[in-house]
Amino acid sequence: MTTGEISSKGELKYEGKAKRVYATPDPTEYIVEYKDEATAFNAQKRGEWAGKGSTNNAITAHLYPQLEAAGIPTHFLEKLDERHQRVKAVTIVPVEVIVRNVAAGSFSKRLGIEEGTPLPRPVVEYCYKSDALGDPLINTDTAISLGWASEADLNRIRELALKIRDFLVPYFEKRGVRLIDFKLEFGKLPSGEIVLADEISPDTCRFWDAETNEKMDKDRFRRDLGGEAEAYAEMLRRVTKEVDG
Amino acid sequence: MTTGEISSKGELKYEGKAKRVYATPDPTEYIVEYKDEATAFNAQKRGEWAGKGSTNNAITAHLYPQLEAAGIPTHFLEKLDERHQRVKAVTIVPVEVIVRNVAAGSFSKRLGIEEGTPLPRPVVEYCYKSDALGDPLINTDTAISLGWASEADLNRIRELALKIRDFLVPYFEKRGVRLIDFKLEFGKLPSGEIVLADEISPDTCRFWDAETNEKMDKDRFRRDLGGEAEAYAEMLRRVTKEVDG
Ligand SMILES: Nc1ncnc2c1ncn2[C@@H]1O[C@H](COP(=O)(O)OP(=O)(O)O)[C@@H](O)[C@H]1O
Ligand SMILES: Nc1ncnc2c1ncn2[C@@H]1O[C@H](COP(=O)(O)OP(=O)(O)O)[C@@H](O)[C@H]1O
Ligand SMILES: [Mg+2]
Ligand SMILES: [Mg+2]
Repeated sequence: MTTGEISSKGELKYEGKAKRVYATPDPTEYIVEYKDEATAFNAQKRGEWAGKGSTNNAITAHLYPQLEAAGIPTHFLEKLDERHQRVKAVTIVPVEVIVRNVAAGSFSKRLGIEEGTPLPRPVVEYCYKSDALGDPLINTDTAISLGWASEADLNRIRELALKIRDFLVPYFEKRGVRLIDFKLEFGKLPSGEIVLADEISPDTCRFWDAETNEKMDKDRFRRDLGGEAEAYAEMLRRVTKEVDG
Repeated sequence: MTTGEISSKGELKYEGKAKRVYATPDPTEYIVEYKDEATAFNAQKRGEWAGKGSTNNAITAHLYPQLEAAGIPTHFLEKLDERHQRVKAVTIVPVEVIVRNVAAGSFSKRLGIEEGTPLPRPVVEYCYKSDALGDPLINTDTAISLGWASEADLNRIRELALKIRDFLVPYFEKRGVRLIDFKLEFGKLPSGEIVLADEISPDTCRFWDAETNEKMDKDRFRRDLGGEAEAYAEMLRRVTKEVDG
């Protein structure tokens, strides 16, 4: 990586709660900047800690090439520096995808199922990506009827989401981490191809230590458990750990 | 119908918010009693009016045989008197099915879509039937994973729900009524067959007058619009009206 690459950061295209997206001289590419800011409960709770952005950047940059190698197309091109990565510019499908292996969070609350209850079959949920509405739960019929995604795109997204799960669950298991649930965003390339976009990090996954069930993710911040910086750093160590098999 | 049939009402099996279900000497049959009570917002709002039970009983008893004739298996056997009908005993699938043609109610609120916006494609939603949890929105993955229904049963339920829609929309259209949305419950016979159970009435549908868009359903009660008894009576007249074609 060279400073030349970072200085190619152009116009700010989008400022989100945890990242910024910049144009580049190449209209097919964006630069994503990972911020240290954290929000929860649709930005009603705000915080930040040093190292958050660089940790999430590093975790995503470590995982996406391995997902590519496993046959999952992603937006990722390269990590530029501590906070930045270069990605393919996509049109984000405004449907967030949540894959659940174990009941937790809003799922547990809504359905009265104790956190930590394993789900006999993975559950894929869909939410409409809308800060104004608080990312409401939807189903695929709703997304199709309201024109947020086509049936073909949603079938492909589901297929990829389950393939990502099948890659990630054993990946984390081998590193002493239970992958409880995770949120994905997909985007569309100009060709129409659906690719995994955004990030996979302790901000977007629930990670529980396999031995102690200790939370190693954004729930430490959401629930005022403390130690978020240490948990994220530990997750980076685990993610990048070389393991057998 | 004879008084003998009503006096065959046995043990109260279930008392719901709008109906009572009684055992009969034949274990494969129940008697359903339609009450005059109305509730809304998960029973936080309560009311009642004379004629509600008999109207809903009559509307359901008029529609279900026609649905049967159109190839939709139902629990309905016969209307016994003003308030009672004889039905097949089923095990209710604890997944309520909502079919939406036009945005309204919770759908409009959750997704910020103005009431009355036609949906380009019908939307089928699923809720977990649980008074304690307020009938939360779910999807089919959740129902399968938590054991509330099998994938095969849910496929059949969806097929039947859309078939019911295809029957009801023109049926009401010919009678000057727009069918905005409706809620269905399905049950399982001992044979494993899925049948339409419960009721189809102004309690479970949104009916808007085709000319004036006036509400002719439980929203009159939910939203304190008044005139619910008249609206229900008018809906019974329309439902039982002989029309051409
Ligand atoms: N490759 C990409 N091209 C365009 N937009 C992207 C890409 N990857 C992620 N995004 C979008 O950039 C934003 C990232 O910032 P973030 O802080 O996560 O936003 P949010 O507050 O919406 O979660 C998100 O809106 C995400 O959908
Ligand atoms: N054929 C049937 N066999 C068994 N139960 C039924 C049948 N048809 C409807 N039910 C159930 O009977 C109850 C009807 O009463 P209702 O007042 O509508 O209840 P709720 O308050 O649950 O809506 C519902 O719980 C419904 O699921
Ligand atoms: Mg985000
Ligand atoms: Mg009911």
